[in-house]
Amino acid sequence: MKNLKLVAARPDSSRSVIDVMGVKFGKDFVVIAGPCSVETERQTIETAIAVKKAGANMLRGGAFKPRTSPYAFQGLGLKGLKFLDKAKRETGLPIVTEVVDTRDVSWVGEYADVLQIGARNMQNFSLLREAGKSGKPILLKRGMYSTLEEWLNCAEYILAEGNPNVILCERGIRTFETYTRNTLDLSMIPAVLKESHLPILVDPSHGTGILSMIEPMSLAAMIAGADGLEIEVHIDPPSALSDKDQQLTVAQFEKLMRKLEKTRIFCANLKAMDETMDGDTTANDGKSSGRRDSAEGKESVERERELNPFIDAVD
Amino acid sequence: MKNLKLVAARPDSSRSVIDVMGVKFGKDFVVIAGPCSVETERQTIETAIAVKKAGANMLRGGAFKPRTSPYAFQGLGLKGLKFLDKAKRETGLPIVTEVVDTRDVSWVGEYADVLQIGARNMQNFSLLREAGKSGKPILLKRGMYSTLEEWLNCAEYILAEGNPNVILCERGIRTFETYTRNTLDLSMIPAVLKESHLPILVDPSHGTGILSMIEPMSLAAMIAGADGLEIEVHIDPPSALSDKDQQLTVAQFEKLMRKLEKTRIFCANLKAMDETMDGDTTANDGKSSGRRDSAEGKESVERERELNPFIDAVD
Amino acid sequence: MKNLKLVAARPDSSRSVIDVMGVKFGKDFVVIAGPCSVETERQTIETAIAVKKAGANMLRGGAFKPRTSPYAFQGLGLKGLKFLDKAKRETGLPIVTEVVDTRDVSWVGEYADVLQIGARNMQNFSLLREAGKSGKPILLKRGMYSTLEEWLNCAEYILAEGNPNVILCERGIRTFETYTRNTLDLSMIPAVLKESHLPILVDPSHGTGILSMIEPMSLAAMIAGADGLEIEVHIDPPSALSDKDQQLTVAQFEKLMRKLEKTRIFCANLKAMDETMDGDTTANDGKSSGRRDSAEGKESVERERELNPFIDAVD
Amino acid sequence: MKNLKLVAARPDSSRSVIDVMGVKFGKDFVVIAGPCSVETERQTIETAIAVKKAGANMLRGGAFKPRTSPYAFQGLGLKGLKFLDKAKRETGLPIVTEVVDTRDVSWVGEYADVLQIGARNMQNFSLLREAGKSGKPILLKRGMYSTLEEWLNCAEYILAEGNPNVILCERGIRTFETYTRNTLDLSMIPAVLKESHLPILVDPSHGTGILSMIEPMSLAAMIAGADGLEIEVHIDPPSALSDKDQQLTVAQFEKLMRKLEKTRIFCANLKAMDETMDGDTTANDGKSSGRRDSAEGKESVERERELNPFIDAVD
Repeated sequence: MKNLKLVAARPDSSRSVIDVMGVKFGKDFVVIAGPCSVETERQTIETAIAVKKAGANMLRGGAFKPRTSPYAFQGLGLKGLKFLDKAKRETGLPIVTEVVDTRDVSWVGEYADVLQIGARNMQNFSLLREAGKSGKPILLKRGMYSTLEEWLNCAEYILAEGNPNVILCERGIRTFETYTRNTLDLSMIPAVLKESHLPILVDPSHGTGILSMIEPMSLAAMIAGADGLEIEVHIDPPSALSDKDQQLTVAQFEKLMRKLEKTRIFCANLKAMDETMDGDTTANDGKSSGRRDSAEGKESVERERELNPFIDAVD
Repeated sequence: MKNLKLVAARPDSSRSVIDVMGVKFGKDFVVIAGPCSVETERQTIETAIAVKKAGANMLRGGAFKPRTSPYAFQGLGLKGLKFLDKAKRETGLPIVTEVVDTRDVSWVGEYADVLQIGARNMQNFSLLREAGKSGKPILLKRGMYSTLEEWLNCAEYILAEGNPNVILCERGIRTFETYTRNTLDLSMIPAVLKESHLPILVDPSHGTGILSMIEPMSLAAMIAGADGLEIEVHIDPPSALSDKDQQLTVAQFEKLMRKLEKTRIFCANLKAMDETMDGDTTANDGKSSGRRDSAEGKESVERERELNPFIDAVD
Repeated sequence: MKNLKLVAARPDSSRSVIDVMGVKFGKDFVVIAGPCSVETERQTIETAIAVKKAGANMLRGGAFKPRTSPYAFQGLGLKGLKFLDKAKRETGLPIVTEVVDTRDVSWVGEYADVLQIGARNMQNFSLLREAGKSGKPILLKRGMYSTLEEWLNCAEYILAEGNPNVILCERGIRTFETYTRNTLDLSMIPAVLKESHLPILVDPSHGTGILSMIEPMSLAAMIAGADGLEIEVHIDPPSALSDKDQQLTVAQFEKLMRKLEKTRIFCANLKAMDETMDGDTTANDGKSSGRRDSAEGKESVERERELNPFIDAVD
Repeated sequence: MKNLKLVAARPDSSRSVIDVMGVKFGKDFVVIAGPCSVETERQTIETAIAVKKAGANMLRGGAFKPRTSPYAFQGLGLKGLKFLDKAKRETGLPIVTEVVDTRDVSWVGEYADVLQIGARNMQNFSLLREAGKSGKPILLKRGMYSTLEEWLNCAEYILAEGNPNVILCERGIRTFETYTRNTLDLSMIPAVLKESHLPILVDPSHGTGILSMIEPMSLAAMIAGADGLEIEVHIDPPSALSDKDQQLTVAQFEKLMRKLEKTRIFCANLKAMDETMDGDTTANDGKSSGRRDSAEGKESVERERELNPFIDAVD
């Protein structure tokens, strides 16, 4: 992973912790929940209260919506930001909302606690620089066509402007498969943990586009090591102005949160096993397997490929 | 999912259980482990003993290896099958091995307990038919370029010949991302559970091609509902004749198995929560969320898309 | 192709002609040539003089360069625009240059005759709207991950702001194939001609990234019906600050232009054959084949697919 | 392009000529035409007579059809081969037909003059070896998911068995774009011409799946340097049992052939320009541009990429 100076994993493997009003990305498992789009004051506040009660750590909601067609609902803009602000004062939940224009970064940043840069703008380098200059925490989604290397370079744009507060979010890539809306690439969790010190979230809502997949993919993301989730929740999905088929009801979200909480504790236990088991194995074994996994893993694959291009997929 | 007659999910949601010498796919969580290629008698038997001891349920090993280049190691053929047979007699582990030629199905079937059809042959329809006629349990890997619909239709080819014993295995698809060898598509687990009654395994070894990803992807597959795993294990990976950089050492496999065992129990508890929680919520809520998730989910998405094509990815 | 109001093909099949200082997109075959990046005054002016002499109709050159890494050369900005302006005054060639920030549209528009929106910003909807408001001719490149439908909807964003002057440019999509830099999708030429009235260019330089492919792909684009080409030419490719391996030398460009000129005349003759041949065939035949090709073509495919999903790729 | 011994371009750039009953692949421009599937004796013979009259050099027709669903029409098998044989005796046209099973290679080879290996079987290595042993000319289609390197390695399998008579055929790859059935990758024409001595055809019927694209893509393939085309023609497309929406009528095929004939002559003239122009430029220029294009082109790109990964797509 060349050309990464600020984003690359640290020699001591320590990871960034990004504190947003006490919510600690990279340390705690963070759940960001809320509607796809901010639609009405009531919808925003009721959703905020409900997701907070269910255990969410942060509220999401789009005021500026990138849409395929110019004739689709484009978001409420400033009005939407004000609804989010009201919901924040009501619940104490910090706000994540998308910004899509360099001219909006500073004023939207007055309403948002975290600015989201969406998949379509991942390589909008002007926006990345402006986001860097703002100093605000940035949630940087992976472009639907972007490699890990390109994605991390986009984070590098932000850090290069002096802003270390970048949170990555895998949200599915575009492939030939049309059954799901995108192909959620959970391998990016261990990949980011290996290549960077930045926190990595997963968005199973856009990543699958299928309601019944959100729970299994959320649990899978957690156990694979993700630092959190971004999930769409709506008080009345059928009436939603966008993404109506992939937003959880409040009841579904509550159920998911109870499972996530149980799984979170289990994952801590599982992690504790690592230390015990590493103690079990002889120092020699431990070291050698450790070395293969982390430091040398990818490099040796690459070296090997150079020598013999036919170490190929055989099953 | 049109044209599926025998493979499609049953009205009562019951699932197929495929019993291979007491190993019950679709009921128990099954771990198939072993080397990419069968190389020597010692390697095969030692690996078999080791993976058995670690808790594996079945032994894998390739005697016929599809390779990109005609000049790469192509497998030991019959000699390899005999080593597998010896390993089976030594350990009692049933054998999974790939078949690549219609002419080999019947005689390879005398050595194998499960015949594997690999990614490159997924749409080798003659081979599918022959596999169907053989009556042997078939492990059908997803083609690296294949949609869910095409994959299930390939299973349909086998069932249409009167052989109901098909086990599906997701092993990653080909995308633009080159960091991983393939993009492991874990969303296929809930997808198959919804669309079919057949068991669904995951192969994290070929699915990622990166040693350090095998554990997190294995745990993720399990919690997402997979019926089992197929994992490459080698007694001495650096000396392997194929896939040397993605095969676990025995020590690494043992560690993984201990985590999987713990996770298996946890998943059972998590599933038990479903029943409790479904009891908690009012009958109405339970039903409606249920209906949305399963029966109506995809259909309503499709209906919606027809009406409004711009319910589009917005983040 | 739903939701297209202004961009969709007209009932009478007439096509837009966009006149830029006498260069008529949609009527004449237009060749835009010039360096990837504007680097020095000398380089810009010498290239302009050379491509003009060779027959180019317009000068391209990037002053704002979207680059994967923040540490790569990012373009000269205003200084670069001034070099382009000088080259324009020297040669009379109109200027095409990329704009990457909503804040720059109006002032960059004072130097550019055509504003280019690059692949990475294709779905930067704020930029599209600003481009629409500017009234300037816009060269809209296809995103490397974008479907025809999404691309045309992006053009619709510009037209919806009252600016009818949009020129489309196919520049390759991202696929699994890594031999070429992108996969140049020449089928988009007949596709755009069928679905829209807007001019369609092809960029073989980015579309292939391989010097020796530029000539065959340029000729292919012309005979397939493209309205023009955008080609990278540099007076000294090895010294270029970007894309050094895909920029033509002046000598190579001259040779290409001579072939294109010959081919242009041939294509006019070939087109004339259509009328003669349509006269040859009986009215009945002519009509029926005509109807199949244009009006009903796609629709009947779609209707068919609904009825029978297995009209599938069989070779 | 490593590991290619027999398939790689020759030092003297000479190309293979494969003579099938006087039809010279790699020397003459060859048009293979005929129905997707052989359906009836009348359909086969009438189509053969019509395409022969229009100028086709060879007859295609599927007797064994790989189909996504087991319940779709699978071809007539031996009966179909007999119809093809009758059509051959009637018209003198050599026959190309697909073989899908190792057990069928020898007996199908008694009816076929060229054996086709379809996209789905491109990496059916057993079939490739059997095809190699047969000695018959083999038309090897590119897999819809296959890189150039993999494709050429598949040809290597056939040559490695002592059969030098391989004809390559690009037929479109699978991408995210669903407007066309596949994405026809015409850049494979110059790529194959550079990397191999084998003839390269293009199949615009499967490559686009859209009737109105067949003419422009055929002309584009020819001018880009293809050695021929494989095109689906049916005497009554609406009644076809497969691919009914992409098969040309006889009248459409005749029209296309007249244009191709005209274009063939033009291309010869265009090629003659090369020699004249190469004489024009100074020896120095000629050599240096020559060297960049061919011998050093790809290598220098690769060397460059190693040094600086950010010579990246900027438009």
